[in-house]
Amino acid sequence: MSTPMADISTRISVLTVGDELLSGEVVDTNMQSIAKSLGEVGFFVSRHLTVGDDIDEIVGAVRALSAESDVLVVTGGLGPTNDDLTNEAVAKAVERPLEFHGHLAANLRAFFESMGRPMPDENLKQAHLPEGAREIPPAGGTAAGFMLEYDGALIAVLPGVPREMQDMLASDVIPEVSSRFAATHARVTRRIMTFGLGESELASLVTDRIGVGPVQYGFLVMGGPVVVKLTATGKTMSEALEIIESEQLEVEKRLGPLMYGVDDEPMEEIVGNLLREKGLTVAVAESLTAGMVGARIANVPGASDYLRGGVIAYANDIKREVLGLPGKLLADGAVQTEVAEAMAASVRKMFLADIGIATSGIAGPGTGGEKKPPGTACVALAYEGGVFSLERRLPGYRQMVRNIATLASLNLLRLHLLGILNPSYQP
Amino acid sequence: MSTPMADISTRISVLTVGDELLSGEVVDTNMQSIAKSLGEVGFFVSRHLTVGDDIDEIVGAVRALSAESDVLVVTGGLGPTNDDLTNEAVAKAVERPLEFHGHLAANLRAFFESMGRPMPDENLKQAHLPEGAREIPPAGGTAAGFMLEYDGALIAVLPGVPREMQDMLASDVIPEVSSRFAATHARVTRRIMTFGLGESELASLVTDRIGVGPVQYGFLVMGGPVVVKLTATGKTMSEALEIIESEQLEVEKRLGPLMYGVDDEPMEEIVGNLLREKGLTVAVAESLTAGMVGARIANVPGASDYLRGGVIAYANDIKREVLGLPGKLLADGAVQTEVAEAMAASVRKMFLADIGIATSGIAGPGTGGEKKPPGTACVALAYEGGVFSLERRLPGYRQMVRNIATLASLNLLRLHLLGILNPSYQP
Repeated sequence: MSTPMADISTRISVLTVGDELLSGEVVDTNMQSIAKSLGEVGFFVSRHLTVGDDIDEIVGAVRALSAESDVLVVTGGLGPTNDDLTNEAVAKAVERPLEFHGHLAANLRAFFESMGRPMPDENLKQAHLPEGAREIPPAGGTAAGFMLEYDGALIAVLPGVPREMQDMLASDVIPEVSSRFAATHARVTRRIMTFGLGESELASLVTDRIGVGPVQYGFLVMGGPVVVKLTATGKTMSEALEIIESEQLEVEKRLGPLMYGVDDEPMEEIVGNLLREKGLTVAVAESLTAGMVGARIANVPGASDYLRGGVIAYANDIKREVLGLPGKLLADGAVQTEVAEAMAASVRKMFLADIGIATSGIAGPGTGGEKKPPGTACVALAYEGGVFSLERRLPGYRQMVRNIATLASLNLLRLHLLGILNPSYQP
Repeated sequence: MSTPMADISTRISVLTVGDELLSGEVVDTNMQSIAKSLGEVGFFVSRHLTVGDDIDEIVGAVRALSAESDVLVVTGGLGPTNDDLTNEAVAKAVERPLEFHGHLAANLRAFFESMGRPMPDENLKQAHLPEGAREIPPAGGTAAGFMLEYDGALIAVLPGVPREMQDMLASDVIPEVSSRFAATHARVTRRIMTFGLGESELASLVTDRIGVGPVQYGFLVMGGPVVVKLTATGKTMSEALEIIESEQLEVEKRLGPLMYGVDDEPMEEIVGNLLREKGLTVAVAESLTAGMVGARIANVPGASDYLRGGVIAYANDIKREVLGLPGKLLADGAVQTEVAEAMAASVRKMFLADIGIATSGIAGPGTGGEKKPPGTACVALAYEGGVFSLERRLPGYRQMVRNIATLASLNLLRLHLLGILNPSYQP
């Protein structure tokens, strides 16, 4: 369970560099991982700026952000090509010359030799760092990072390749920031993951808690799960943690089995843990979701302990020929709870599993010949003692309908494993 | 085929507002969709700033960015709750009072009535816009957007809910920006999607084109596909387009079947189109990928025309009991090309499909009892004329191995449908 915590007295800025971030070609995931890593040790990013591969833009941004920050983390633009300008721009911004580092050049040459190619002269720029900078050695790639002081700020410059950036952040930047700055205020957040009710119905279950205590409430809709976000601030981390933990207990009481996890716990992990605890196995029969349920269960390492496998019964005659469903049952259309139940029961037997789960529905757009509207989904579960199913009309477009139906079938499995078979929930 | 194009003479800034973006809880996808929408009509974002839910931060950011921009797009913080401060902050930044709009209030009341709940007074802040602002009506939610002028800049303020933001951007902001500013320089990019070779091997196929002509080359590794990115700049869009199209033809010649698409065309759509054209059907047998191949094929609307379904044969005895593979074949382990071939052939017959494809492998971490190392993947294809398979050692962690194997099996299908059965490729 991750518990993001944040010091709100140290001002930290992040500068990400790259035309590809401004053109929309690439989503900036580095910002998220920097924020999460800093959050884990109690620091909070107060602003994030992105500029393109332009030397004047980078110089201006480094100066403006270091003037108003205690810490500035810069990523991107440390590569060997002509649009990689960050070393040069940072040196210019802090008014220091670039200095040649022989061991970095040797390292670059060795890298190219290992690929059997001559090193282009251009690459030598990766062997130059601003004078007096403290080098952060290359982490798997050819780019070195560095840290230096300017205008009262600690500036850390890291490559844009996510894995290299994360390694250097963990090995050098986070320890340096932690040793220099102490968290004098702390903020803690908890994300209570729920499935089954909409945002407003969910809010109504905790409405008497909102605005009365020291904990802030937020609700985030994530295309399936709805997240209740709690935020507490305290003078120390332990104070903030104490506040949030007592509020979490209160929320858990109200939500009961609607809550399935905390922070980033995925449903498939929770279901996987329950299956393993009970020593049970599962098989899937998927029409609407065409493999998504099986694939999600198998996301978790060691899933082979409880996932037997399943049948993707996409064409209707497969439901008859492979799963052995009676033609009579299918004559009224495949999108019925009775069909989903028969699919779950059949795959359970065919795969010698303790539990079978199944999905059938219409992802849309269009009805695919079914009588029911797009967004109609049936999910079912079969076990030794019987079957259980639900039919719902789901909102959204094709991928969202399939995602929510996948989660709904996993949630049915979770509720069954918890011994709650008839919850009033909306997948 | 999308063709992002960008005017580089109009300065456009984007300001996204929200603590959740700075804490790393949420990745900022709005920036990407704003950049793409503007790119389609020829404009390029030159900087992007994110600040938290703090009134002074927002005021400072609006003033600083409008001073140096022709257009400033602001998103987030237009909701009803106490941490939604953008309307108030923008009014303060541009030194105008907030003005009450009766029809927005009536609209809010109607929204709450339809949910059978009284409207909290707090929501009335959504009925206040800065004096003289041009309203953008709510797009499905309760928040109105608006546009106004300040310090020589056009400021557009939009909700943070992605769908509402996109609707208002398309209906009001893009037309306004296009009518005011003319593209005097244009930049065009093309992303050539490839599968089968690494970045450096791919670069070596076009090395004589790099740095000699007017087109810039870039290479992006996307955990499976490798993208060759071409960028051309011209005085007009048609000039830039002409340059890039002739370069694209040249690249296509070099890459041949390594190239599978352009820009954001997903592999499953390309494969789906080929299957439909030829009137062929496919079935899948998945071990390593546990449903991912079927799920990806079914991402495409109308996939039921060619996807029959498949078997998720996760447990080893399922390969024997359901797919009917000989126990002798499995005795040496399931991660062999012979096993993948037998799975593909069996699912093809069992599901009455023209083509069967299969995956088997070790996602890791750990070997799951197999003799081969984690990352080993076998993919196979069976058709009326025979079978074909590949074994590769894939890089990366569990999810990446499964993703690349999924793409590798779809690429095998693509190459088969194109009549190329024995390509020298590395999945």
